[in-house]
Amino acid sequence: MFPGPLGTALAGRALARGTWTLDSVDIRDFAEGRHRSVDDTPAGGGPGMVLRADVVARAIDAVSVGPDGAADRRPRLLMSPRGRPLTQGWVRELAAGPGVILLCGRFEGVDERVVEGRELIEVSIGDYVLSGGEIAALAILDAVVRLLDGVMGKAESGSEESFEAGLLEYPHYTRPQVWEGRTIPEVLTSGDHGAIARWRRGMAEAITEARRPDLWAARVPPDRRRT
Amino acid sequence: MFPGPLGTALAGRALARGTWTLDSVDIRDFAEGRHRSVDDTPAGGGPGMVLRADVVARAIDAVSVGPDGAADRRPRLLMSPRGRPLTQGWVRELAAGPGVILLCGRFEGVDERVVEGRELIEVSIGDYVLSGGEIAALAILDAVVRLLDGVMGKAESGSEESFEAGLLEYPHYTRPQVWEGRTIPEVLTSGDHGAIARWRRGMAEAITEARRPDLWAARVPPDRRRT
Repeated sequence: MFPGPLGTALAGRALARGTWTLDSVDIRDFAEGRHRSVDDTPAGGGPGMVLRADVVARAIDAVSVGPDGAADRRPRLLMSPRGRPLTQGWVRELAAGPGVILLCGRFEGVDERVVEGRELIEVSIGDYVLSGGEIAALAILDAVVRLLDGVMGKAESGSEESFEAGLLEYPHYTRPQVWEGRTIPEVLTSGDHGAIARWRRGMAEAITEARRPDLWAARVPPDRRRT
Repeated sequence: MFPGPLGTALAGRALARGTWTLDSVDIRDFAEGRHRSVDDTPAGGGPGMVLRADVVARAIDAVSVGPDGAADRRPRLLMSPRGRPLTQGWVRELAAGPGVILLCGRFEGVDERVVEGRELIEVSIGDYVLSGGEIAALAILDAVVRLLDGVMGKAESGSEESFEAGLLEYPHYTRPQVWEGRTIPEVLTSGDHGAIARWRRGMAEAITEARRPDLWAARVPPDRRRT
């Protein structure tokens, strides 16, 4: 599972260069007893299995070691549909921070006591249910790694991409000039950079208002934006 | 990248059994000309590269073949942060449907004309930016596959999981009874199934209201719910 898709392309090249590092730990290595089980049936009954607090805590404690034995300042994130929704702003915070510890559940869930006892921050990548936390962790890592210094080229700096200024991105076009009778909007081939910037801004605003009234309502109006 | 993480665990076993199938196609195979390029610079300038409409259309057309040459009824989804947010309800629709064609972009984006010309439905797995559509596609496939008949055991049927009835899930506990001085809530070990159900419902409601006022406001009240 790890690095899995992150071993290829942009993130993979940065991993090979040492721009970021990844250690994966199998919770099963921290199980005890004859059956070395990591999970058990839910208290009170119901479907599925629940990851044991003691096993999960031992795994977290084993990796929570800061540099030179200092306290580990990395946030501990638990992948969970009950969590705080991941946003590009949070991704930027994580990219600027000391790294992350990501806990991937499987089965029905994780014993609530280890969430409290180890101060796990529940994070959700969206309002749907995955079979485990691994693909959610891959999504978070991919979003964060691409923002690290030296991973994206300057040309792809992402300053005009979706969620910057609270807007979705404007539409893109490239050659050929005509495709199946559809032409590139004239302004984009006009060479008038001011007109192009205004057109793109207008399209980004129109698309955001039409598709995501929630983002549109939450955006900071231009006259109240800090520059 | 594919099946990648979906080749393991629940989804992987179902793939091996033939419960679902996956064909992956490299857009590069549909490029033409001496350089076989799939992308070009954005019309109007700006960072990054844009996937060409003609190349993407050829790739889509090549895979859009229904059974016995009939029209392909599968929705064509384009992974994009500008898209309609994926929800568990949409996941359930996809799981009940004829399958999906997923287009994964890389670079800056995809020429808008092929989005219109091939009726691509833009779907977003969350409000953050990934380096490409592949991990988003893995998330969608994982969410959908686990709902297919015969993939999850009946015991894990998911009828009480997050987003069912518009609520986040209640907290889980399992053995040991006491861990680091923290005990399992008494009601869960009472054996009173009615009381356990009421406690779980109350916790699910409290957690949803506290963490996700947006879901809480949008939920269907119990007295207006269809059974």
